[in-house]
Amino acid sequence: MDKRTYLENAKEVMAQITNGAFLTVKSGDKVNTMTIGWATIGFVWKREVFMVAVRNSRYTFQLLEQTDNFTVSIPIDSAFKDAVMFCGTKSGKDFDKFKECNLKQRAARHVDSPIVDIPGVHYECKIVYKSAMDSAFLDSKLEKLYPQKDYHTLYFGEILDCYDVER
Amino acid sequence: MDKRTYLENAKEVMAQITNGAFLTVKSGDKVNTMTIGWATIGFVWKREVFMVAVRNSRYTFQLLEQTDNFTVSIPIDSAFKDAVMFCGTKSGKDFDKFKECNLKQRAARHVDSPIVDIPGVHYECKIVYKSAMDSAFLDSKLEKLYPQKDYHTLYFGEILDCYDVER
Repeated sequence: MDKRTYLENAKEVMAQITNGAFLTVKSGDKVNTMTIGWATIGFVWKREVFMVAVRNSRYTFQLLEQTDNFTVSIPIDSAFKDAVMFCGTKSGKDFDKFKECNLKQRAARHVDSPIVDIPGVHYECKIVYKSAMDSAFLDSKLEKLYPQKDYHTLYFGEILDCYDVER
Repeated sequence: MDKRTYLENAKEVMAQITNGAFLTVKSGDKVNTMTIGWATIGFVWKREVFMVAVRNSRYTFQLLEQTDNFTVSIPIDSAFKDAVMFCGTKSGKDFDKFKECNLKQRAARHVDSPIVDIPGVHYECKIVYKSAMDSAFLDSKLEKLYPQKDYHTLYFGEILDCYDVER
């Protein structure tokens, strides 16, 4: 588990995110993970940041609104394809996704939310800014991504750590 | 001028942005460029996106509010250090920065805003979403970045092109 710089192999990391990564959030005694395929990374507010987008209809949104941190676990290969599919289509309101997918949690180093204990790249983030989307400022071509008008809230997490978990 | 994938050499690109890059905007017959040191890049709304942050007190903000596109020109080396400094500390309200810094414009391929004609990496972006910062959702530790309460507006540009200009 060597520490990575946040943008090391960023191309590979972002390519893998678009194939599905796990966004994990803990609030109180509740933990949930969901699949994400969208993210941006960079440097804002003098901090390395990882931005994720979560629809307000999601169970993860409820947890994120009650805490200030999240982790992102990016699988190194396609071995977790079924889990990525399950966690992207089922809700934590209805399932214990860790149990259903036989995924294990591993304590993070700096935040309450655990990482998913799989080989890959892991980010630990503390939320420093968030913004509920205002549809008025969205390009009209993008409206079709929101047929139910369930817009995203954008969460900007300061990257506290980024590291590999080996096979 | 080979086309790059948006995250090719992203680490190098982001490291260079934090040293100063040029954000260029054209609205009508007005063109201005300003130095940025903050940005994020990634994939959202099924699009490759480049996010920049512009304080509402900036001349560039006025131009961005009247158009739907911008470019980012990232110098390949430190030869443009003085221009980066000038364009980050002086306002386009007071100076023609291109003239003052002896910078040339070059027509972009896909957007109205030109690129700064320097060796480096250039992004052409169409704004698909923007969001004025709401200070209520900002980590209190970050408030010190806004002593004048002149918050940023976040502009998310779809990356239409990304390429090198050689020496």
